Amino acid sequence: MSALEALKAELRVVARLRSTASLLHWDQETHMPSGAGAARADQIALIESLTHERLVGDGVRRPLAELVDLDSGKPDPALDEETARLVHEIWRDYHQAAALPADFVEDYARLTARAQQVWAQSRKDNDFNAFAPYLEKIVAMKHREVEYLGKKETAYDTLLDQFEPGMTSAEVTRLFDSVKRRLVPLIQAIRDAGVDTRQEILKQSYPKDKQWQFGLQVLKDMGYDLDRGRQDVSAHPFTIDMHPTDVRITTRIDEHDFLSGFSSTVHEGGHGLYEQGLDPEWYGTPFGQAISYGIHESQSRLWENLVGLSKPFWRHYYPRLQALFPENLQTVDLDTFYRAINTVKPSLIRVDADEATYNLHIMLRFEIEKKVINDGLPVRELPELWNRKMEEYLGVRPDSDANGVLQDVHWSFGGFGYFPTYALGNLYNVPIMNQARKEIEDLEEKIASGNLLELREWLRNRLHRLGRRKTASELIQDLTGSPLSAEPFMEYLETKYREIYGI
Amino acid sequence: MSALEALKAELRVVARLRSTASLLHWDQETHMPSGAGAARADQIALIESLTHERLVGDGVRRPLAELVDLDSGKPDPALDEETARLVHEIWRDYHQAAALPADFVEDYARLTARAQQVWAQSRKDNDFNAFAPYLEKIVAMKHREVEYLGKKETAYDTLLDQFEPGMTSAEVTRLFDSVKRRLVPLIQAIRDAGVDTRQEILKQSYPKDKQWQFGLQVLKDMGYDLDRGRQDVSAHPFTIDMHPTDVRITTRIDEHDFLSGFSSTVHEGGHGLYEQGLDPEWYGTPFGQAISYGIHESQSRLWENLVGLSKPFWRHYYPRLQALFPENLQTVDLDTFYRAINTVKPSLIRVDADEATYNLHIMLRFEIEKKVINDGLPVRELPELWNRKMEEYLGVRPDSDANGVLQDVHWSFGGFGYFPTYALGNLYNVPIMNQARKEIEDLEEKIASGNLLELREWLRNRLHRLGRRKTASELIQDLTGSPLSAEPFMEYLETKYREIYGI
Repeated sequence: MSALEALKAELRVVARLRSTASLLHWDQETHMPSGAGAARADQIALIESLTHERLVGDGVRRPLAELVDLDSGKPDPALDEETARLVHEIWRDYHQAAALPADFVEDYARLTARAQQVWAQSRKDNDFNAFAPYLEKIVAMKHREVEYLGKKETAYDTLLDQFEPGMTSAEVTRLFDSVKRRLVPLIQAIRDAGVDTRQEILKQSYPKDKQWQFGLQVLKDMGYDLDRGRQDVSAHPFTIDMHPTDVRITTRIDEHDFLSGFSSTVHEGGHGLYEQGLDPEWYGTPFGQAISYGIHESQSRLWENLVGLSKPFWRHYYPRLQALFPENLQTVDLDTFYRAINTVKPSLIRVDADEATYNLHIMLRFEIEKKVINDGLPVRELPELWNRKMEEYLGVRPDSDANGVLQDVHWSFGGFGYFPTYALGNLYNVPIMNQARKEIEDLEEKIASGNLLELREWLRNRLHRLGRRKTASELIQDLTGSPLSAEPFMEYLETKYREIYGI
Repeated sequence: MSALEALKAELRVVARLRSTASLLHWDQETHMPSGAGAARADQIALIESLTHERLVGDGVRRPLAELVDLDSGKPDPALDEETARLVHEIWRDYHQAAALPADFVEDYARLTARAQQVWAQSRKDNDFNAFAPYLEKIVAMKHREVEYLGKKETAYDTLLDQFEPGMTSAEVTRLFDSVKRRLVPLIQAIRDAGVDTRQEILKQSYPKDKQWQFGLQVLKDMGYDLDRGRQDVSAHPFTIDMHPTDVRITTRIDEHDFLSGFSSTVHEGGHGLYEQGLDPEWYGTPFGQAISYGIHESQSRLWENLVGLSKPFWRHYYPRLQALFPENLQTVDLDTFYRAINTVKPSLIRVDADEATYNLHIMLRFEIEKKVINDGLPVRELPELWNRKMEEYLGVRPDSDANGVLQDVHWSFGGFGYFPTYALGNLYNVPIMNQARKEIEDLEEKIASGNLLELREWLRNRLHRLGRRKTASELIQDLTGSPLSAEPFMEYLETKYREIYGI
């Protein structure tokens, strides 16, 4: 067996271990009995440490050393371009993992598995103090992690790079500033317009089983393959991939909030399509993996916002929705419904935010995270800082920590550096969609006739199947002919909301 | 850390790996997307081979070598009696695992994971030929396994010993012959009695959600802890344990067969109580494990048959069942219902068989398995032999292989030697229940007033908490004062069915 084949075989083993940890996590969020938390944390810690052990073990290192220089990551000059790319990306993963001691990995996995359970309870009890000791330990471990990995421009940059390879906090700041410059006046203008978008239409009673049925139909139309995936209900919607043949999404359904369940179904469906679209031939290797968290988020938000909140989409689906919920919608026309689902209104909860104010929720988190990681802000001061920033950015003050600093799961698994990728997803997805419009003839008409498959095929061929053959910035440059900027996204928002709000 | 502590810590790791494989299996049967079979087989093979690797690795061997002689299993004479027992049982597991080469374990795990999927499809398609090549490979691997483990009196004895340690096929034959001598005439007398037990009462429409609700209430009353377990629906009911805090059972519900769902719920509930009753302090060690498959089955059958099909039980529950299904049951009195659920009638499917004819299904399998394993009977000849034996034992001939040789999952996971433990469970459970009646004052009256918890507590203290401190035969001897025999079981059957059928 060649070194390359040996390396790929061993990486498939690593992927199988990782996907087993994924099942342990998925089950924890969907089906696990409440009393099993401690035993589950032990299982997860074990499998994650075995994954790490294997990734940095001889089975990877020996063949990899025949293909790249292990210190620099420079591929053997004799390799063809594609293989050189592949082994360099493998080296990147190996190098990062090898920097972390095994006991650190196991302690970290056990701490965060437990911390997620504690966080869920703290949030339920509105008790930040119960969670704070865990968060303090996590922050301390993140600092150790940065030491092991090597500090980039700032400690936070080291963490950000794990979620969005190649991205820096300086670049995020530049992009976010461009957004803010145009977004803040847009939101102000929307508020000043004083238009009643009749959101109450969405807050009537929508029986859960019919919501489920409608969401599932849209997923099928999007081409989400239920023989290679499934949908469940969980408190916090998420997507988990084990293999392109086993990609699972979850959603939540609120009887009195149609948009909440619909959006999360389509959002997670977008993530799911990316994972189902990865090439199984390359399973376990970078060419069978998603590019970055930001690109992943571009796929969920493209479907959730650019498709699922668009007029063409509802030209097709609105009559069907009316037929399903006649008592709620038969007297509501399409334009009214369209305005209702596109209401812009500052609110407390990120996951319920509209696509305009959403970005302010992210900017706030980005700033707080930098303070915690770079400036040593004590964890105990987080609730107050959170509330102050909410007032500053969104003009609303949380009535409780549960609706404030405790609302997101991310810090409980140590995901500092994750949040910016949500807003980056917004910035990525507009140029991608603009390109799809150029390359797919009459895309809007197709969507308006319920044909979503052509868009999925285009995304699959132009993006999903690439795996990590390109970085996020290379992908955007090559696909759209321009580097990433905030302009297309802001153009999109301004055009859409000026029309809706008559600005 | 002492050798004993180091050993226990490493065995907990082994148990966490094994329990992770259990989750992969559980998920495969309950929630896994249909297209994920191949990827799942790879995951299971990996985790099972890692489990094996760890069990025979230095982490176990080194401390174990300080406590027992690794060749003979003889404990260090300086150890106290309990510890000596513990390390001997650990050695037993170690010794058996160490006899199997790692690549054999991995190949076996992958083959059987896949074979279970193929079996399920073959059964659906009524196509034995699709399954036969897998079964041939499995039989070939069982022969290799026997060579590795060392042949006992017969090859089949080696396999039987894995499910029922200390049991021999000669002893099983002796016990089964004693049963047969009295059972065949009893079944003949029942047939001759010509009593109509009005089974059609149970075949009316029983809406599934109400069946589920009733079964769940009984489980709760039995003391099955839903914070440390759950119930799901699967094609074939089973119990899977990951930890005493995470014990899951499944059931099936047939709208037109009340007894099928009720029996499997209570049956698996009995298994579940055993696992929930194990001592978590000893997790991963033999003292935190069930004694044998036969003793496990005694617990499920005790609840299913000796409690769940008894008059006292239904004195309490029947009025509640009538209230739940008035249109089916309001004109049916308790005695009539009791006779209906205790109908004895030879039939094709083991899992649907009544408690009398059930044992004939097992005897047939025991004989066939011995022919396959000891006498080299070709797999292709199984369907015909099966059908012939069915006629001989039960007087019915399967209309299809799906209802014949393909009905059970066991051979697809290589479980040759497993079936006898089902009938042994019947033989064990009657003396155990007789002892409970002696030690719990007014047990029948307690059951008749819906108090099932006292029985569970007794079983927990006298049996579940012991783990493998005793073998099955020691347990029965110590608990009941007599060695295992077929007499108590046959006494029970004859008394019960003579009354029901007026013989």
